[in-house]
Amino acid sequence: MTRSNQFVTLMTYATLNPSFAEEIKCSFAGQAVMQLIGAELSRVEPGVVEITLPYRNDLTQQHGYLHAGVVTTIADSACGYAAYSLMPAGSEVLSVEFKVNLLRPAKGASFLARATVIKGGRTLSVVRADVYRLSGNEELIATMQGTMICVRR
Amino acid sequence: MTRSNQFVTLMTYATLNPSFAEEIKCSFAGQAVMQLIGAELSRVEPGVVEITLPYRNDLTQQHGYLHAGVVTTIADSACGYAAYSLMPAGSEVLSVEFKVNLLRPAKGASFLARATVIKGGRTLSVVRADVYRLSGNEELIATMQGTMICVRR
Amino acid sequence: MTRSNQFVTLMTYATLNPSFAEEIKCSFAGQAVMQLIGAELSRVEPGVVEITLPYRNDLTQQHGYLHAGVVTTIADSACGYAAYSLMPAGSEVLSVEFKVNLLRPAKGASFLARATVIKGGRTLSVVRADVYRLSGNEELIATMQGTMICVRR
Amino acid sequence: MTRSNQFVTLMTYATLNPSFAEEIKCSFAGQAVMQLIGAELSRVEPGVVEITLPYRNDLTQQHGYLHAGVVTTIADSACGYAAYSLMPAGSEVLSVEFKVNLLRPAKGASFLARATVIKGGRTLSVVRADVYRLSGNEELIATMQGTMICVRR
Repeated sequence: MTRSNQFVTLMTYATLNPSFAEEIKCSFAGQAVMQLIGAELSRVEPGVVEITLPYRNDLTQQHGYLHAGVVTTIADSACGYAAYSLMPAGSEVLSVEFKVNLLRPAKGASFLARATVIKGGRTLSVVRADVYRLSGNEELIATMQGTMICVRR
Repeated sequence: MTRSNQFVTLMTYATLNPSFAEEIKCSFAGQAVMQLIGAELSRVEPGVVEITLPYRNDLTQQHGYLHAGVVTTIADSACGYAAYSLMPAGSEVLSVEFKVNLLRPAKGASFLARATVIKGGRTLSVVRADVYRLSGNEELIATMQGTMICVRR
Repeated sequence: MTRSNQFVTLMTYATLNPSFAEEIKCSFAGQAVMQLIGAELSRVEPGVVEITLPYRNDLTQQHGYLHAGVVTTIADSACGYAAYSLMPAGSEVLSVEFKVNLLRPAKGASFLARATVIKGGRTLSVVRADVYRLSGNEELIATMQGTMICVRR
Repeated sequence: MTRSNQFVTLMTYATLNPSFAEEIKCSFAGQAVMQLIGAELSRVEPGVVEITLPYRNDLTQQHGYLHAGVVTTIADSACGYAAYSLMPAGSEVLSVEFKVNLLRPAKGASFLARATVIKGGRTLSVVRADVYRLSGNEELIATMQGTMICVRR
């Protein structure tokens, strides 16, 4: 009774801001909390952004797992920048709301949040971020579905 | 500046209940609201369930689009049954919570909700449903991320 | 060890549209799905809207309870109109997203969705709706937290 | 056209664990991330928990506001402990999922997350947390609606 289901989604994104990648790197460097927790921006493409985070004892909840708020921190920034990558030059991005399901304990040597734009828009963008643990058997530990807003500077 | 990103996810599900498909069909037939709105169960596989809904004037909000609650109705049932398909025999499924982002106006001749289990579990299952309009250019109009609970009869 | 906690929230809303109540009644009358399910608009005040729904056998899921999608339908419309009541004249309201927690089985003779604006805004409004069953011991059966957008006509 | 709406909710909670307050304080002390960000447990009652957080430059996003993930961190812990306060002795609490709406920029000298149990349950509890900035005009900056699960040790 084992079955295999294959889902293939092809998404093509056209960016409106030729310097989006530099601007995201610069903005990320200005997110002080990313340095505090030790997160790094590891991929920046139109509609897709990844942030990696090594495990540290001082990021944990009472069982020694990464705190859900820390998981959310990297997922939210990845979502914001994924949305930003498709916005016109001169924009700023803010989180409107997000929802996170915590699927497995966040234990492991390091973590990756991969955000993908589901629907870009002039004002609102809907973005998903999947958070994986990268050690041992790679597994999805959390998934975020959120809304980002474009504010013109 | 146009880029293409391809995401491929392979999910293999093993069902624990050999008669899940019959039970889902029977349960769906017992959801009176599905008949009221004219929804049909169009695909039942381990971890994946689809429900289709033709447009009707009496399912709309003030602009003539499908009401978000009707979109939610088919997405929620699809999620519940997708979770149920992976549960052991003798289970019942209930919705714990869900979150829906409405991406585009729900106008079109018919609609499809496709639910996929993201993470099955002994007690809780996390499921996603994408809702598409099937006429003209097929487009994603809404996406649900929700939690279903397994209750032993 | 029994304790009592009292929470009092005072919210004062100034409406920007003197004919909001008439417009909401008119718009509600144009939501065909409300007639289909038998819902009624029972309270319209600035920032607060209630919709009531008598139980009917054809609104149910497989256990004979109101389907979560039907609960969502009245909660979403109540949220949309609560947001609309604080918007300037000439606006339209659309649902951006909502999240619903289902707290108890939706069984009872009738139901009430009460939506309250948490934060109104020029573009986005955040609204909460609590859904109660009105028969027997009145109980909260579901709660929605959602985002509505103001579109200028 | 200004109106006032008063909502009063009386919630009475009976705790099942006479040492819940000590256990929550002990568990909070074991959440290493709380020390990292400088959060303090400021109220522990049956069904209600508060966490306070002074502003710090190293907790911010690119505009100098508290990062949404940090806001989520204190809201999530407050929700978890509010749920825990109503669970039987020998329980552990884990976050299943949460949804956060960000209402205003998180700027201010300090912040307070107040979590309140909406519906306790044997397995699942639904909890809300409101996050306020405490300086200048006290304002709600974010609200969380989430689900916590009770795991027997």
